[in-house]
Amino acid sequence: MAKWIRVNDARKESSLSEAAGESVEIRGWVRTRRDSKGGFSFIEVNDGSSMGNLQVVAPAELENYADEIQKLTAGCSLVAVGKLEASPAKGQATEMHATEIRVLGWADPETYPLQKKRHSFEKLREWAHLRTRTNTLGAVMRVRDQISQSIHRFFHENGFYYINTPIITASDCEGAGEMFRVTTLDLERLAKSGGPVNYSHDFFGKPTFLTVSGQLEGETYATSLGRVYTFGPTFRAENSNTSRHLAEFWMVEPEAAFFDLADNMSLAEAFLKRVFSDCLEHCDEDMQFFDSMIEKGKLDQIRGVIEKPFAHMTYTEAIEVLTSCGEKFEYPIQWGTDLQAEHERYLTEKHVGGPLILTDYPSTIKPFYMRVSDDGKTVAAMDVLVPGVGEIIGGSQREERLDVLEGRMAEHELNPDDYWWYVDLRRYGSVPHAGFGLGLERAVQYVTGMANIRDVIPFPRTPGNAEF
Amino acid sequence: MAKWIRVNDARKESSLSEAAGESVEIRGWVRTRRDSKGGFSFIEVNDGSSMGNLQVVAPAELENYADEIQKLTAGCSLVAVGKLEASPAKGQATEMHATEIRVLGWADPETYPLQKKRHSFEKLREWAHLRTRTNTLGAVMRVRDQISQSIHRFFHENGFYYINTPIITASDCEGAGEMFRVTTLDLERLAKSGGPVNYSHDFFGKPTFLTVSGQLEGETYATSLGRVYTFGPTFRAENSNTSRHLAEFWMVEPEAAFFDLADNMSLAEAFLKRVFSDCLEHCDEDMQFFDSMIEKGKLDQIRGVIEKPFAHMTYTEAIEVLTSCGEKFEYPIQWGTDLQAEHERYLTEKHVGGPLILTDYPSTIKPFYMRVSDDGKTVAAMDVLVPGVGEIIGGSQREERLDVLEGRMAEHELNPDDYWWYVDLRRYGSVPHAGFGLGLERAVQYVTGMANIRDVIPFPRTPGNAEF
Repeated sequence: MAKWIRVNDARKESSLSEAAGESVEIRGWVRTRRDSKGGFSFIEVNDGSSMGNLQVVAPAELENYADEIQKLTAGCSLVAVGKLEASPAKGQATEMHATEIRVLGWADPETYPLQKKRHSFEKLREWAHLRTRTNTLGAVMRVRDQISQSIHRFFHENGFYYINTPIITASDCEGAGEMFRVTTLDLERLAKSGGPVNYSHDFFGKPTFLTVSGQLEGETYATSLGRVYTFGPTFRAENSNTSRHLAEFWMVEPEAAFFDLADNMSLAEAFLKRVFSDCLEHCDEDMQFFDSMIEKGKLDQIRGVIEKPFAHMTYTEAIEVLTSCGEKFEYPIQWGTDLQAEHERYLTEKHVGGPLILTDYPSTIKPFYMRVSDDGKTVAAMDVLVPGVGEIIGGSQREERLDVLEGRMAEHELNPDDYWWYVDLRRYGSVPHAGFGLGLERAVQYVTGMANIRDVIPFPRTPGNAEF
Repeated sequence: MAKWIRVNDARKESSLSEAAGESVEIRGWVRTRRDSKGGFSFIEVNDGSSMGNLQVVAPAELENYADEIQKLTAGCSLVAVGKLEASPAKGQATEMHATEIRVLGWADPETYPLQKKRHSFEKLREWAHLRTRTNTLGAVMRVRDQISQSIHRFFHENGFYYINTPIITASDCEGAGEMFRVTTLDLERLAKSGGPVNYSHDFFGKPTFLTVSGQLEGETYATSLGRVYTFGPTFRAENSNTSRHLAEFWMVEPEAAFFDLADNMSLAEAFLKRVFSDCLEHCDEDMQFFDSMIEKGKLDQIRGVIEKPFAHMTYTEAIEVLTSCGEKFEYPIQWGTDLQAEHERYLTEKHVGGPLILTDYPSTIKPFYMRVSDDGKTVAAMDVLVPGVGEIIGGSQREERLDVLEGRMAEHELNPDDYWWYVDLRRYGSVPHAGFGLGLERAVQYVTGMANIRDVIPFPRTPGNAEF
């Protein structure tokens, strides 16, 4: 029996010697078929293991040549057996000379949506169950996988434990955003009840929601296991129909005990460089595609981030640059206001010309848990900005002083009873600690250059859309 | 400045030569302090990087000896600077002779819950934010991390892409269990509305739920990328207050195109062996602890699973064994009924004496998507059973034939409109494919021997409990 090998392996020049003249078998889907006048057909076969196809040369002598092979169209599935040979065609090292082709499944060209014709990404979203059969979406999902793998490898190698913070929660990470409610109450019956809602009948006995961040729970583990990271789904019930927002997305959040803001910045820089380098190294073919077909110059842009040391600047210095640079911005800027994407992009693209970490933001525009600096006006926050998108990572050193934290919670009118366990971390063996968050989809968008975030997650959830 | 190293590194004999006589710094939490008559104190310091502590020897000459060091109690945080020396004490290769100890945070022994006194696991659940500071829970979470890392490594190395299937879904994987509802409707207002519920006002414009399985969506990616796996949270709104059930748990689900049941069995066997071997190799100290303190014989049990080839048996053969073995079971068994844990454990522990894969279950007790065998009565299902717990993995080859699948859906009275995209996979380039599911917490329970599933997940969600 011929050995089954995957297309990415069959395409390598080294496979010619490895197969040692023996027949091999590939299993995949037809991308195109072209019949030659010379009495054979060229079938481009893909099995998802790489963007490139293996060219299968099917001679007319095959017994099912007329009945089946000449009827193959895009999307049909097959098994091809034959020998790998050096290919005379340009751009491919090998091709298969088939001795047998078994058709497994047909794809009626009258109804199969993915014909040769190019579809818009918007249209492809309607076929989210099929769209990864296209070059672009297949490449996006391979890069997404690589980024996820790199995230796990990087943190594991640096002594961080992977932990799963809860998805269903009764607390909200200080209003990081609108939350989805989770309930087992029978809504139809509830609607007829006349109210009020009796939560003792709900599954958890009280109102519960989908998490917006695992940070606070992550801190509990950082202050016992030392270094941890969460990497899981997070949710925002915001009615944002933009190319940058999803109701459900994945976020990685490392948290490290005994880290200060400087350690946190070093970690974020090493982390981004590792993730991006891995993409260039392990997804070369896919990255070449994005560079030439999706966003010209993407490779140079990423190399710039990898090669340059990240610049550092305080928020206060950034405001000075922005107010004195003479650039016209849509949103006015002054000390105390939050930076908009246009400001961030000006700083990283035009002022620095490379990645930039902004630190020491006004406490008034940041959450209660960030560490208050000695000036009393700023907190030990950091945002990592990269050319092309602006902010890609946000983080901070956390407030470890019990009295200062309690004061900040009072300022924010938070109920201490809701945070008793979070405050306990400052009561018992408190330590300096810090962490940050990276949205996976934002990172995939950055690396691939894909314009719409709905095209970098398998099944996007947005207002009015939970199909599949 | 002394170099900061972690406790697991400081404890290694090799650190003595690596430090080359230079001072190093450790940062962690006090487990115990013991004052010697000889004018010094022994402080056991842990930083989460290993179960074992580093013994820090603090001489009375330290300037804060009387004021601070002699007041250190469990849970206090500190930085210790000094030289690593070979330890004369039994069971530890090294110890630190401190030249400086800076106390970072106190832990009032009057109120700090984790005093030397042993607490029940049940009691510790009330302090889920602190319980990983104990030996057992710290070890559990390190093993949980190792299993998660192994899952990603194993599938990555075998050509599987990590994909994230949706958490919020409008479909249910054929009633795999009761589902949580996700909504943004204002429940108080709804209760006063008098009904019926108008879903056009809900976030997604229709009823939505938390996923019970990513399998169906996983199949869409397997039939484009070839081999994929999901690894994410899944949910059951079941009112089960048992030591084996959680409302929120993590599940890994690989799915591979061109795999039949035999391929699926080989994959599951290789997968489990890899995960268990990694735990023995990388979590040696923690595993020794479980073997001696939690479940005697655990190491031998796991080695048995790693070393033995998994036995194979059909469901029909298993029924013959169970009905003719003379063993008394609580639940009666006959062809067509589902196996209970007692039956599974008899088969794997007493009949086979090792891991066992049961296959070819009656179609009547399995979901619609499993492939119907030629006998028309059974499906290509598989359950992997291991001594000690019974079923740990469930999977199947999927039904790839359009007409058979549609027939099965009709039998199960499923609405084809809800599954149009799933059926499409059989319409366009259908291929044989297979996959399985492993609950992460069940695996952690198995490896550690922990009796209650609430003690192997950071913040367990069960009926009435969504604290933290």
